[in-house]
Amino acid sequence: MKILADVREAYGLKIVTEALDESGVDMVERYGDMIQLGARNMQNFSLLKRAGRSHLPVLLKRGLSATLDEWLLAAEYIMSEGNYNVVLCERGIRTFAQHTRNTLDLAAIPAVRRISHLPVIVDPSHGTGKNFMVTPLARAGVAVGADGLIVEVHDQPERALSDGAQALTLDQYEALVNEVRAIHEVIAPTPVG
Amino acid sequence: MKILADVREAYGLKIVTEALDESGVDMVERYGDMIQLGARNMQNFSLLKRAGRSHLPVLLKRGLSATLDEWLLAAEYIMSEGNYNVVLCERGIRTFAQHTRNTLDLAAIPAVRRISHLPVIVDPSHGTGKNFMVTPLARAGVAVGADGLIVEVHDQPERALSDGAQALTLDQYEALVNEVRAIHEVIAPTPVG
Amino acid sequence: MKILADVREAYGLKIVTEALDESGVDMVERYGDMIQLGARNMQNFSLLKRAGRSHLPVLLKRGLSATLDEWLLAAEYIMSEGNYNVVLCERGIRTFAQHTRNTLDLAAIPAVRRISHLPVIVDPSHGTGKNFMVTPLARAGVAVGADGLIVEVHDQPERALSDGAQALTLDQYEALVNEVRAIHEVIAPTPVG
Amino acid sequence: MKILADVREAYGLKIVTEALDESGVDMVERYGDMIQLGARNMQNFSLLKRAGRSHLPVLLKRGLSATLDEWLLAAEYIMSEGNYNVVLCERGIRTFAQHTRNTLDLAAIPAVRRISHLPVIVDPSHGTGKNFMVTPLARAGVAVGADGLIVEVHDQPERALSDGAQALTLDQYEALVNEVRAIHEVIAPTPVG
Repeated sequence: MKILADVREAYGLKIVTEALDESGVDMVERYGDMIQLGARNMQNFSLLKRAGRSHLPVLLKRGLSATLDEWLLAAEYIMSEGNYNVVLCERGIRTFAQHTRNTLDLAAIPAVRRISHLPVIVDPSHGTGKNFMVTPLARAGVAVGADGLIVEVHDQPERALSDGAQALTLDQYEALVNEVRAIHEVIAPTPVG
Repeated sequence: MKILADVREAYGLKIVTEALDESGVDMVERYGDMIQLGARNMQNFSLLKRAGRSHLPVLLKRGLSATLDEWLLAAEYIMSEGNYNVVLCERGIRTFAQHTRNTLDLAAIPAVRRISHLPVIVDPSHGTGKNFMVTPLARAGVAVGADGLIVEVHDQPERALSDGAQALTLDQYEALVNEVRAIHEVIAPTPVG
Repeated sequence: MKILADVREAYGLKIVTEALDESGVDMVERYGDMIQLGARNMQNFSLLKRAGRSHLPVLLKRGLSATLDEWLLAAEYIMSEGNYNVVLCERGIRTFAQHTRNTLDLAAIPAVRRISHLPVIVDPSHGTGKNFMVTPLARAGVAVGADGLIVEVHDQPERALSDGAQALTLDQYEALVNEVRAIHEVIAPTPVG
Repeated sequence: MKILADVREAYGLKIVTEALDESGVDMVERYGDMIQLGARNMQNFSLLKRAGRSHLPVLLKRGLSATLDEWLLAAEYIMSEGNYNVVLCERGIRTFAQHTRNTLDLAAIPAVRRISHLPVIVDPSHGTGKNFMVTPLARAGVAVGADGLIVEVHDQPERALSDGAQALTLDQYEALVNEVRAIHEVIAPTPVG
């Protein structure tokens, strides 16, 4: 994780990285800018509370079989400890469908929007698990009204240590950014913040 | 169904309407322009074959728990009888999620695109079941690359005989058309045929 | 189907066989003793109504993604035409689980029992799709209170034209019958009908 | 948790209780006899590893959307730390079905049996969430070949602090024990250890 901090130093990028347990939160606080809590930990209540006592913002991924209520209640566990900087992330749910790694539930975006003030972003990489689907679903995520995207990118996806099958190349990523910016302008001509 | 034919006459609109059984196909052939086969009939093989012997194009909705293979094989039942004018329609699958009537599986669009030449459209009305979600999901459907949309519209949704909760008003529909046209231009600057 | 009638004649067995469409019901009425309606046709309303006008009893399989209400309402379509001899059959639902062909939902048996007078049986063959699971799930079906079982049997499963992987041999079938009879006595020491 | 230890002292009962986090394991080690890891923690890898360093046996509940592989791999996390005393527990998966709290997947028992040496038990209380279903599903669990049951019992379910709707009364529990013993004898006439 020290390497991430060096990259931050050298390039000015902010670092979002996952904490798998309470001591992981200590690490992210030292070297990162935002704590990611993974889908498998969405109901790890001790971890949620520890993140709630952090000064860093938290990215809370939706559990694989989490209802909307369970997801928002998990966010409450964080906020009840005093940390209100929570961003929700839809990353796909587990269904019978086999053509994707998970089924990206984009209707969750307007559903969350209606009952919560929390920002919500979309992860089309884990949500699909397949390179050729990432850009279309990223476009859809912005079109449905998400506040942001989280996308896996690798300069040589075939050499990635994990999740290479769903990583975009740098060229694909650049094209994606241009497309989603144009879509965002269509649906939100005036700045919202 | 005679009324639909009168409307067609008066306004020049094309009529797509559902055939629930083989005699329903006779009716649509007489008064309509396209035969819709509903999600609950996606594996009604006698009906699929009857539609395959029609001169009208067929709109084949995905079954509530249909895999991609099952959906495309249902289309094969139609095409094997000689009718190649089949349009697929994603209208949501059944999952544990309760914030929508069905879970709209937009990743099915690029997945179908990759293995089939058939056009595929999106139904954000049945796919969500809720008025306030229809426009965001319609935008997402176009952004993901669908060839079209099917949307419920009613001049007075609160008086609709069925599915009023998911119907758009005429004003909402007009706004939707403008938005999806703009999104379509972003993702498809050159005509595709 | 004539062959089935000959078997019935020769051995005195009753014949339950599936009608895929309305003309199939005519056939079963001629040669069979009970009309089976398959999971994929559970919401084929024309077929349900035709079976409702038959003098034969009907075996109504649960749809792959049918709720309890939808299943019982499908039975109502049959009964509303005057045929009250409907037997329900749980044969597994579609879920994310991949270790079986379908997920046998045995809790549906007491759930149906509580709100309906209709008899309900269990199909452990389609419910699992695997030979080694059929006997355990058949035992469980009887233990949960089902009124009967429907089991695939083949004297040479490896030569079966379809569904061989889930068929029991004659020896396995005989052992199963002995076990489920003993379980039935445990849970229902006095006759219930 | 001190109270549980007092009960153990007074009545000679063994105590199985849940550890929600690593410090919870310390507590169970002090006052209990077996560590339960809940469905929501099935992929809490730090907790799994901590339980793997305990001298107490571990009851590992299946996650709400866990595949068989994921469940067995979670058990591997425990065993890889040296603790081989792991008992698996099927407690229902999340599906579209709404007549139960979860869908009890009893086919998981023979499926686990075939690929693992680990004992596997059934939880018909969480698996159904409804008092009237607990006994039938407990019987089914034993009939399908489970090594044991875990059942919620309360002398006054209507006054239970949690999960009262699925708790059995003492009389119901006694009747259940008699029934499942008789079923167990049917399927396993010779002692298995």
